Order: sequence, then C-alpha cells, then structure tokens
Amino acid sequence: MSLYRRDPMNQRQRPRIARRMGEIAPFQVMELLVRARAMEADGRDIVHMEIGEPDFDTPGPVVRAAHAALERGDIHYTPAMGLLELREAISGWYRTRYAVEVPPHRICVTPGASGALLLACGVLLDPGDRVLMADPGYPCNRHFVRFCEGEPVGVPVDARTAWQLTPEMVGARWSRRTVAALLASPSNPTGTVVPPEGMAAILDRVRAGGGTLIVDEIYHGLSYGFRAGTALALSDDVFVVNSFSKYFGMTGWRLGWLVVPAGYVREVEKLGQNLFISASTIAQRAALSAFTPENLAILESRRGEFQRRRDYLLPALARLGFELPVTPRGAFYLYADCGRLTTDSHRFALEVLEKAGVAITPGTDFGRHQPERHVRFAYTTSMERLEEGVDRLGRYLGH
Amino acid sequence: MSLYRRDPMNQRQRPRIARRMGEIAPFQVMELLVRARAMEADGRDIVHMEIGEPDFDTPGPVVRAAHAALERGDIHYTPAMGLLELREAISGWYRTRYAVEVPPHRICVTPGASGALLLACGVLLDPGDRVLMADPGYPCNRHFVRFCEGEPVGVPVDARTAWQLTPEMVGARWSRRTVAALLASPSNPTGTVVPPEGMAAILDRVRAGGGTLIVDEIYHGLSYGFRAGTALALSDDVFVVNSFSKYFGMTGWRLGWLVVPAGYVREVEKLGQNLFISASTIAQRAALSAFTPENLAILESRRGEFQRRRDYLLPALARLGFELPVTPRGAFYLYADCGRLTTDSHRFALEVLEKAGVAITPGTDFGRHQPERHVRFAYTTSMERLEEGVDRLGRYLGH
Repeated sequence: MSLYRRDPMNQRQRPRIARRMGEIAPFQVMELLVRARAMEADGRDIVHMEIGEPDFDTPGPVVRAAHAALERGDIHYTPAMGLLELREAISGWYRTRYAVEVPPHRICVTPGASGALLLACGVLLDPGDRVLMADPGYPCNRHFVRFCEGEPVGVPVDARTAWQLTPEMVGARWSRRTVAALLASPSNPTGTVVPPEGMAAILDRVRAGGGTLIVDEIYHGLSYGFRAGTALALSDDVFVVNSFSKYFGMTGWRLGWLVVPAGYVREVEKLGQNLFISASTIAQRAALSAFTPENLAILESRRGEFQRRRDYLLPALARLGFELPVTPRGAFYLYADCGRLTTDSHRFALEVLEKAGVAITPGTDFGRHQPERHVRFAYTTSMERLEEGVDRLGRYLGH
Repeated sequence: MSLYRRDPMNQRQRPRIARRMGEIAPFQVMELLVRARAMEADGRDIVHMEIGEPDFDTPGPVVRAAHAALERGDIHYTPAMGLLELREAISGWYRTRYAVEVPPHRICVTPGASGALLLACGVLLDPGDRVLMADPGYPCNRHFVRFCEGEPVGVPVDARTAWQLTPEMVGARWSRRTVAALLASPSNPTGTVVPPEGMAAILDRVRAGGGTLIVDEIYHGLSYGFRAGTALALSDDVFVVNSFSKYFGMTGWRLGWLVVPAGYVREVEKLGQNLFISASTIAQRAALSAFTPENLAILESRRGEFQRRRDYLLPALARLGFELPVTPRGAFYLYADCGRLTTDSHRFALEVLEKAGVAITPGTDFGRHQPERHVRFAYTTSMERLEEGVDRLGRYLGH
C-alpha cells in the first residue's frame, strides 16, 4: 500500500505504549475460546464450560420493557447517575431483599459493573496507592486498580479460608500505602462467599487503617441454600458494586450500579459525567422491569437450575480426580485443583479442548497463586451438556 | 439513624479523595439544566439551547433493527472489539463515504466516543505525559487525559484560527514531555473544522516530535456546504474517535468507535476487555442498520434541518449584539462572543434563563481562555423554538 510506505511513523520499530499496559493482561481464556470456535467451524462439537455468563437469555419481562421503551422513543442521554426511577427501584430492592435502607441519591447506575469499578478506583486511588484483594480473583479488579496507577496487592488465598481474605490477612498485609481492600462475594473464579462476621471484622481492620472497603456483589442473587447479605447492612461507608448481568441475566445490556458513601457522591457523579456521560438508556428502561414479581420468579427458577448443576458437577468432577475441598455457595463456578492430573493447567486446558472437546479456563487468568494447579469450570450450560462434558473428561482421563 | 451513628468513619471530616478529582470539573451546564427543569416544573416555558444532543429521535430503521434484535434474543456479551459485522460496516462506511481503506481489525467498537477516548488515553499516556488541545474545547477531553495521570495542555485559540490549533501552535508548544495532540473537527463548542492542509501540517509537526495525533471526528456527518475529510486519509498512524451519537442520532445507545494504528490494536483490545468487557450488544445490532440507504436519507434530511437552523440563528444572534466572526461549518453549536453584552458569561447565562426563559451554556464549561466573554448556543431544538428564543433574548436585551 502506497499510503503505508509514505508513512515515516511506520519505520519506528515499536510504538509508544503506556507503561500500565505492561501490567494489564489479556483474558487468556479468549485464546482458548478462539480455538474452540475454530474447531466448531471445522465441525467439532465443543462443550463450553469456560464462559463466564449465564446461558439463559434475557428474561421476557425485561425484553418486553425494552420493546415498549423503543416504541415510546426518546432514547436520549439520561442523567449521569442514572434514571431516578431506576435508582429508586434499586433502593427498593435493597429494602425488600436485604431490609437495608440505601437512599437513591447514593446509587449510581453504571455501564456494567465494569463502570462501577472504574468509578470507585477513580475517586479513591492516587498513584502508588495499594489495594488488597484475594489471589485468585477476577482479573479485571487488579487491572482497574493498575489503570488508575494504583498498586493491586494480591493476597494468596486457598481452600483453607474458602479462597477469601480474612481479617488477619488484611491486618497483616496493611501498610502505610494501603488505602483499600476489595472483596468479591460470591467470588469469581471460586464461587465462595465471605461470611458476615468475617466481613464485619475485615471492615473493622480496614477502618483501623484509615482505608475504604470495596465489595463486589456482582454475583449476589446467585447463592445456594442461603441468602448472601450485603455489606451495606454493616455500614454506609462501603463502596458496593453490583450488576444486572449475572442474576438478572442482562450481560449484553452492560448495566450495573455502584453504591457510594455520601461523601463521595458528588465526586462519583462528576467522574461519571466525564467518563461515560450516562449508561445505556434502553438498558435502564428495560431494567425497570427487572425487579417485578414476574421477573423475579423467572430468576429464582434459573437460580434453582444453577444449583442443580452445581450439585451435579461438583461430585462428578471429584470422581474424575479433581479436588474441590470447598463447596462454593454462589455464582456459577467451580475452581478445581487439578494437581493430581497435571502440573500445567494451561497446557491441560488446551489438551482437554483438543482431545476431549471440552473448554475450561486455566487458573492463569485469575492470578499468580498456584494458577498452574487450578482450572475453572463454569456451569453456564445445560445439564445435558455438563453430563456430556463430564463423560468426555472421564474418557480423556482414562476412567 | 442508629446505623449512621454507630459508624466511626462518619466522624472523619473529609473522605479520602484521589487528587485527580481536584482537576476534574463537573459539567457547569448541569446546574443550569437543573434550574431550568425546576422552572419548568413551576410552569415556566424554557427554550433549550444548552443541550448538546440532537433533538431528533433515533431514526426508524435503527429502532426497527433493535426490535428485531430483541426478538432474535441472544443479548449476550460480544467480543471486546465489537461484532465483526459492525466493524465491517464501519470499514465500509470509510470506503463509501471517504474513499479510505480502514480494515475492520483496526476498528474497535466502544461504549460511546467516551469509551474510545478512554482507550486511546489509556494505551498512550504515562503519568506526566502532555497532550496539546485547543482551549476552548470539549471538557471531557482534558479530563480523560487527567484521569490517566497525563497533563492536558490547553492552547488558547480564538476566532483568528477558527478556534482550532495550527501547525505553528503545535510546534511552539511541543516539549520533551509532550506525547500527543488532540484535534476535534468539527469542534464542540465552536463547530469549526481543521482544514485538510492544516491537519496534514499538524500531523507532520506531531510526528517530528515523536508523538501521536488523536482526532475527534464525533461530529463528522454534520457539516454544511462541504464534506469533512477524515484524518485517516492522511495516515494509518492516527487515532480517530467517532460516535453513533450525533450524526446517527443514537446518543442514549452509548455507542462509538476508535480507529487504532496497527501497532496498538492488541493493546486496545486487552484494555477494552478489562475496562468494558464489550459495548452494548443491542446498540451494536441496531447500529448495523445505521449505514443503510434508507437510514442515511433520514440523516441527510436532518442535516439539512440543522443547516437551516444554523443559517437562521447565526445572523439573528449577530443582530442581537453577539459577535460571531467565524461561520461554523459543522456540529450544531455557535460559540458566541458576548463581550458587548456582559463581562460575566456565567452570570449572563443564569440571568437569561431566569428573565428570558432561554437556556444557554456559559463558556466556563469549555476551558480557561476567555470563558467569561463567550456562551454556546446549541441549535438542537426546532426552528420555531429557536425563533421564540431569539425573540425572548431580543426583548431581554432591549431590542
């Protein structure tokens, strides 16, 4: 191309890339997903147990509300904090579901939980500020901190503490430069939760250090055999991130929210104005139907299905030689120790894909603590497909 | 509330807030908009000439495509770079509209142009890196730079250079710490464009300094009496930001795109994965109909209406005593010098709202260069309402 050759910049060996990008990793699972799609294009059948979103479509009441919003028209910008009606509906959800009062003015509607995490990090973190979080954990969490020039401090956790931070860990790892701790409950990739007494004690430790607690409650609603309590029941000074993606089944709509301590509301509003203008209007209008009894009945039925899948998959994987010492109580993941089967989870995942036609996520996506001996199974496909996947794994592993 | 009183954190006088927030300003016009809405709630009629989005609803073909996407279901995440079909459609748009080849793999679909600006700043800027931009300009541009710990350098511009940077200004202001220049053409708040020869010469200066050119083409399509050329015609090494919001009339859908130099594609993809997961799926599916002949005919008719409004409003304001030495050739703004009418544009805007019932935006939202003697008029309301607004202003100003 002549244009290309005329262009002196292309003679530079390497473009200038911001340093932060050296510490922001791509999703490893994408490489695997691309390979899986290529195999499917070649006619192979793949059981997908790598995908971190519900297989269920957006529920009917929400879709119907979106149709109605389209017919009404007026898909213009909303206020940066979101439609007041939706913020009131979310406030109502805290009241009815958790018996906690969260005034609408402290609720900021965001473009996905991703937007909420970016706002929280943006208003809290100066360069070099440290944030404690569990390793393994959701990789974007450490990347949001790094993006804002903060320093994510991954604290190694394992099955002994249900893959969660403890008050002792927070106390031991707190330093002068630590300004926040981030908990995810239920957690991706482990599905485990922080018990209420643990949450309260961690909050005490964080306060004692003059810091702020951020709690990722993105998988709330998807808990089995109990109802997870919100950190907002403990205090008004916690940042809580939530989402319409997982329990509410609205991934592709990109809608979440951030509950903000009163002293940060103005900062979050102005940052949201500047970074996003506002969240998707049609998603906000559709989400107004997310809390209706009709919709919640659908979501509860789906929750039951997720629980059945977990209850099938966990013992089935254990019989194949995976170790799962903790029964996860939420989300739709099993973080399995594959140390008896391989010393290299990444290679194991690639081989399982090629030879068994089953896609799973290697631990390398979730941190630096023993990623080579763990893989994540997502039960985001039907029971029949899970059974098929287990059969294939069994044959591959020589059972 | 007992919860509140039990809470020791609330005894702190001020919460810890990141330093960047001290340099990220709220939209001043919001204060004015809130006041206007309150007046309307009291029964006052307000002519809105402050709003930076088209008054037209999303065009029918796009809305119908959204209905069809809802009926088809499957509103799940898309790839981080966007649906391949949409990236191909945008590539096709560059081919048919501009006769420029932009391969789909260099196009990243984003949550609004906001998302595109965040990605560009995120992959380019290290702390302290300077970015040149025109003052006055779109306030978020400097805030995106500041958010990434870069240093926005506002270069004062006025009517003599049509409110745009010149190659000489870029050369004079370039320093060792400067890494990029950001142009907006057409510009918000001025509606003016950078001429092609100016763009090429600026690109040369930026390259000579080893830097990168970022061009905001968000208002492309809305140009009057000529067709703005894209900076991509000059080079493949420019970052170009565009949007479905303005010309395509899809503000509330939150969809834009970033054209990325080849050496940055991988970085932009991984940052997009981490910051956004993906842009709204329903917006992407709907936008596939944005480039159809039927839709473009609607958009061109709207463009004609914007041009009629500009052609009416500019001389009408001049007759009232505003000075408008440059006729803007794009967007839907007039940046008027009100120096003969007031020495305080902010107070002037408030008085015009209270006494004349006309809402306009004071220059203070757009930078530090002579904001007190400028106001922005947006012609995003009907001709009848513009005439009503001009009549009211005339009476208020004693004409």
